[in-house]
Amino acid sequence: MGSEERSNQKNECVSLSLMREDVPETETICVFGTGDMGRSLGLRLMQAGYGVIFGSRRPQNCQILPSGAQVLSHAEAAQRSHLVFIAVQREHYEFLVPLANQLKGKVLVDLSNNLMKNQYPEANAEYLQSLVPGADVVKGFNTLSAWALQNGPSDANRQVYLCGDRTEAKQEVKAVATKLGFSGLDQGSLSVSRKLEDFPLQLFPLWRLPLRIALGLTASLFFYLLIREVLFSYITEGKDISFRIMVSLANKVCPIVALTMLALCYLPGVFAAFLQLYRGTKYRCFPDWLDRWMLCRKQLGLLSLGFAFLHVLYTLIIPIRYYVRFSLSERTVSQIRENRTNVFDTSLAWHSDSYLAFGIIGFGLYVLLGITSLPSVSDALSWKEFSFVQSKLGHLTLLLCTIHTYLYGGSRFLRSYMYKWYTPPGYMLCLVLPTVVILLKLLLITPCVDRTITRIRQGWERGVDQKNAKEITPLML
Amino acid sequence: MGSEERSNQKNECVSLSLMREDVPETETICVFGTGDMGRSLGLRLMQAGYGVIFGSRRPQNCQILPSGAQVLSHAEAAQRSHLVFIAVQREHYEFLVPLANQLKGKVLVDLSNNLMKNQYPEANAEYLQSLVPGADVVKGFNTLSAWALQNGPSDANRQVYLCGDRTEAKQEVKAVATKLGFSGLDQGSLSVSRKLEDFPLQLFPLWRLPLRIALGLTASLFFYLLIREVLFSYITEGKDISFRIMVSLANKVCPIVALTMLALCYLPGVFAAFLQLYRGTKYRCFPDWLDRWMLCRKQLGLLSLGFAFLHVLYTLIIPIRYYVRFSLSERTVSQIRENRTNVFDTSLAWHSDSYLAFGIIGFGLYVLLGITSLPSVSDALSWKEFSFVQSKLGHLTLLLCTIHTYLYGGSRFLRSYMYKWYTPPGYMLCLVLPTVVILLKLLLITPCVDRTITRIRQGWERGVDQKNAKEITPLML
Amino acid sequence: MGSEERSNQKNECVSLSLMREDVPETETICVFGTGDMGRSLGLRLMQAGYGVIFGSRRPQNCQILPSGAQVLSHAEAAQRSHLVFIAVQREHYEFLVPLANQLKGKVLVDLSNNLMKNQYPEANAEYLQSLVPGADVVKGFNTLSAWALQNGPSDANRQVYLCGDRTEAKQEVKAVATKLGFSGLDQGSLSVSRKLEDFPLQLFPLWRLPLRIALGLTASLFFYLLIREVLFSYITEGKDISFRIMVSLANKVCPIVALTMLALCYLPGVFAAFLQLYRGTKYRCFPDWLDRWMLCRKQLGLLSLGFAFLHVLYTLIIPIRYYVRFSLSERTVSQIRENRTNVFDTSLAWHSDSYLAFGIIGFGLYVLLGITSLPSVSDALSWKEFSFVQSKLGHLTLLLCTIHTYLYGGSRFLRSYMYKWYTPPGYMLCLVLPTVVILLKLLLITPCVDRTITRIRQGWERGVDQKNAKEITPLML
Repeated sequence: MGSEERSNQKNECVSLSLMREDVPETETICVFGTGDMGRSLGLRLMQAGYGVIFGSRRPQNCQILPSGAQVLSHAEAAQRSHLVFIAVQREHYEFLVPLANQLKGKVLVDLSNNLMKNQYPEANAEYLQSLVPGADVVKGFNTLSAWALQNGPSDANRQVYLCGDRTEAKQEVKAVATKLGFSGLDQGSLSVSRKLEDFPLQLFPLWRLPLRIALGLTASLFFYLLIREVLFSYITEGKDISFRIMVSLANKVCPIVALTMLALCYLPGVFAAFLQLYRGTKYRCFPDWLDRWMLCRKQLGLLSLGFAFLHVLYTLIIPIRYYVRFSLSERTVSQIRENRTNVFDTSLAWHSDSYLAFGIIGFGLYVLLGITSLPSVSDALSWKEFSFVQSKLGHLTLLLCTIHTYLYGGSRFLRSYMYKWYTPPGYMLCLVLPTVVILLKLLLITPCVDRTITRIRQGWERGVDQKNAKEITPLML
Repeated sequence: MGSEERSNQKNECVSLSLMREDVPETETICVFGTGDMGRSLGLRLMQAGYGVIFGSRRPQNCQILPSGAQVLSHAEAAQRSHLVFIAVQREHYEFLVPLANQLKGKVLVDLSNNLMKNQYPEANAEYLQSLVPGADVVKGFNTLSAWALQNGPSDANRQVYLCGDRTEAKQEVKAVATKLGFSGLDQGSLSVSRKLEDFPLQLFPLWRLPLRIALGLTASLFFYLLIREVLFSYITEGKDISFRIMVSLANKVCPIVALTMLALCYLPGVFAAFLQLYRGTKYRCFPDWLDRWMLCRKQLGLLSLGFAFLHVLYTLIIPIRYYVRFSLSERTVSQIRENRTNVFDTSLAWHSDSYLAFGIIGFGLYVLLGITSLPSVSDALSWKEFSFVQSKLGHLTLLLCTIHTYLYGGSRFLRSYMYKWYTPPGYMLCLVLPTVVILLKLLLITPCVDRTITRIRQGWERGVDQKNAKEITPLML
Repeated sequence: MGSEERSNQKNECVSLSLMREDVPETETICVFGTGDMGRSLGLRLMQAGYGVIFGSRRPQNCQILPSGAQVLSHAEAAQRSHLVFIAVQREHYEFLVPLANQLKGKVLVDLSNNLMKNQYPEANAEYLQSLVPGADVVKGFNTLSAWALQNGPSDANRQVYLCGDRTEAKQEVKAVATKLGFSGLDQGSLSVSRKLEDFPLQLFPLWRLPLRIALGLTASLFFYLLIREVLFSYITEGKDISFRIMVSLANKVCPIVALTMLALCYLPGVFAAFLQLYRGTKYRCFPDWLDRWMLCRKQLGLLSLGFAFLHVLYTLIIPIRYYVRFSLSERTVSQIRENRTNVFDTSLAWHSDSYLAFGIIGFGLYVLLGITSLPSVSDALSWKEFSFVQSKLGHLTLLLCTIHTYLYGGSRFLRSYMYKWYTPPGYMLCLVLPTVVILLKLLLITPCVDRTITRIRQGWERGVDQKNAKEITPLML
């Protein structure tokens, strides 16, 4: 094999462990456990040029292991390698206690995952460390899918998160990960392992609340508009306009949800500022609900952008719809038949064009906000740049989209026929929250309020003796 | 110079090598080779504050080197620095053999690239190591363009991939890379160097097959539709509708290619599942063609998204086209002249709006799939999240787009005039593959089949004595 | 506390410093300065499980520190921890001079920022190092916002950039950053600290010039078109068409700015090639203005894409505008009333469709260029791939968009009524630059010119004795 020849030539070790001088031709790695994980990992390790020894309770009975791998008893296997992957379920970890002597000074890699969060009082890796205190436990490889373990890295399976208390042990495991084609990322001490064990279990944890809000809003608006528009028309006029559900109704729900969620995205920041103003300090924690809300602002904003995107598509296909083409043609036909002369209404043209222009520029900024939310883009920005985009441009976007909606409504606010069954039309509902946010924000950026807020955020506290606290002028950011 | 003063003050070494105590005021780096690469690198090293000594066979003859650099014979130059950049072509590496003594314990950085893949039996860096076994060879800097070597990092020239067998040597080179403004990435042992040497040669290797499929599909569809629509109309009716090529025809080719490639993106997964079902194990390799196909699914999907994007644009500009405006106006005119009364067809309105609505939501999900394919986004997802998006939402996208196409066809399937020259219209052709994929997928998610598949993917094998294999319950992912 | 129990069990230190054997149960970190930064950092350190000791001049007077933290005099505090965060403003650093003995061998983390660039002759961290030469100064944490220091990582606050002259010191600080949830990035020696101190001050430095160009172009074009179209019509015909400002005018300004800036993005590359041709070498620096121009090509291109995106939106909403619907309907009405028969003009249909098709494909490529500019995408490309996309596809985009504009103009170039008040219409203005760039580029890719350019870029110099310079054939990239 090519790789063996090469290691003969150079007589140098791939592993990062710097102590051992006599390096074997092929480095050997031990895998405890002959289940799916063990076999998948063993296969991949052998492909990368490692010698693999499986540790098994009844080694003579294992017939389905990858060819080329040795199978020994746990105790024998442990003595043949400095690195031992533990591919066994946590419930069976006790079998390692009698092996404490053989495992002393070895690096144990805990690959295990749980079926749900908080299944056990402590993390699996910490439990393993407590059972074999003489070994160096490294948590890792558990965030990969079994597919990736067997076939190497692919999207979302590129990074091997590692944690452990001993740096050399982590570097040794990182070197193996690198050789298997993954990129190892040191996440800190073993106390991080619970986080790593929870990682594969999570399914968009930060997206749940915003998604629920979006779905709730969408569903309730849909039924509200269904009753107000389709049912009203059917009951009072006997007209069946149910076909409007697919596009017209959807194109009312989408912008309302989008604007409301954009306002929800900027509302907690305003709340927080007023709370700091009221308390006169920034060193007291926000209430739990406000913290949770602030943490999911990015998700609220991105969902809002999604709905705005659908709104744009729904709007742009308007002229292709059969219904619209039919109506426009009918209007022309009736104009001729009734011999009416239409007069061009300049103010209507202004109105219609402004409404569209504000929408376009608002959507352009919206997309810009979305792009700067991409991890690689926001990582490349300084926080001053990021907060400029997300706060200044974000509020500008909200303002433009709110104006867009006001212009859409136009003078219709005053006409009584809009209030079918005494309910306001949808766009009025969606204007409430954004208007509140914009007014509160305007209040916050008036010079006198802004000055106080700035001082509080630089560490000033109302009612505290500033002379003593500032004995050495502190840093201000 | 400012940087010299600073190093005087602190008397500390920038290099990461921890052994040497007596550090010179300015660290000196040696560059062998006075060609373009050598000069570019030397210039950049000097700008970063290093002292640079060029090694040359005839040092007195070198007149075009950056001012400030020293030129010595190879042997002399090697003694002045711990780090030697080898900016010489591989064919001339033999001149290093007599220098073995001077290079002992030094770090040699191999910058070389080849003109094509597999030009030599072993990687250049491995060949270099075999010539000078006493030195530590590090492969690196070869993935940068000459422009970046001279002028510092820019897009796609930010990362310096390094590999080598000795950690300290790699860290020393990484420190230099950092000081030049690049970010060094340790890629593992020297055996990786072939991969690094191939990297600058590649031009979208994973995109070739998908691009060929896309181009082949596009070209054949274009000619099929050209014959069926334009030529047919010209020959049978004598009408010249060739102007339709630019938009109407393109807007038929794009969605067909998009939907077919989306189906091609999900077909191999379905094949693989049936193969695993048939074989009763996941531990046997897939046939080579299936492996290659599965590896380029992402590229197939993204190209498909590109065609879908063009389809959306082509569709949205429909109402601006002269042809469309003319036809609509003519229809209204003829309606009045012939004094016909059009009746609004609710079922047609439903049909037209549903068709558009499915398309919009399908495209929205499509874009979402594209965004989660961005490296920085997919790296931030757990594989559970990634596979949820790409598999669940991906199949949903395929379903929505297929329904969109069925609705577009509508009842036209049954009308004989659609089969000009006995050929089916384009949208029928493009429905074949997606329908097959969706039906097979439906089969796979029926409870009984799904259960077997899941067991196989957790490592269960048909016909294997499970009692022995599972002596210690293995990990399941 | 859970974390204390755990460290009892394992008796291992989280810190990466490998020298100390006796590790305290909870690691203690010292923070000098009780201002906002100090308190924020202290709070976060305690939440992460560290013991925190504040150093203060008058420790008995500090009442507002986070509960659980100790406050001692600077000298006492320094003796209790190996790691000291300096959260004090640079002007007060002198108080550290008398503490030189206590700080010997300690790691000092400089968190300070300045109010403006070049405020002091040397970087704060370098000044600190000169005051306490016996300690190891690490610059870091200064790129985080105060919010992130107190509450942990968020977008654009995830990465802690570190620099310093001693590797172990940096690793120790990196370990703390990791434990606080940030990812530490080693940026090199302490001489980089000025760059790190400038980072939080910058607000899109590379975007300023392109933004100014974009705004200048937009404003001047807007007034030009306002005069030429709206004012001209009002003065010569007395017609008020001011409503066109919102959409029609904007949709003329956007594409002109977009195309001009795309041309500006490719012009400097052409200039540079001709300069190298003229000089016969690539080893002489470009003039300063050309260097600055070339550095902001990416930003010019992305701004151009933004304007193109707005142009697309403005174009797609055309059929929804009241003005357009009114005109189309009026045209049909007048056709019937005057009993005219319109004849379908195939060449007009070809023209209109080609114009749209070139625009669509040009915009599709535009978006592709934008996507490959995303940091995570361009990092995944080799420079050969990146330059293929940005150069080949980029020039193709420019070509397609220029053809799109020529087709838009069509035969109108020749009609005199287009030259109102002797001024050319906007699209003619915007064709000048792209045409020049395309012609120059065509000249550059003619075989004979291309060969010379390629040789120059491989290091060949006109008038230099090549025999001596190439004694050992240099590497060519």
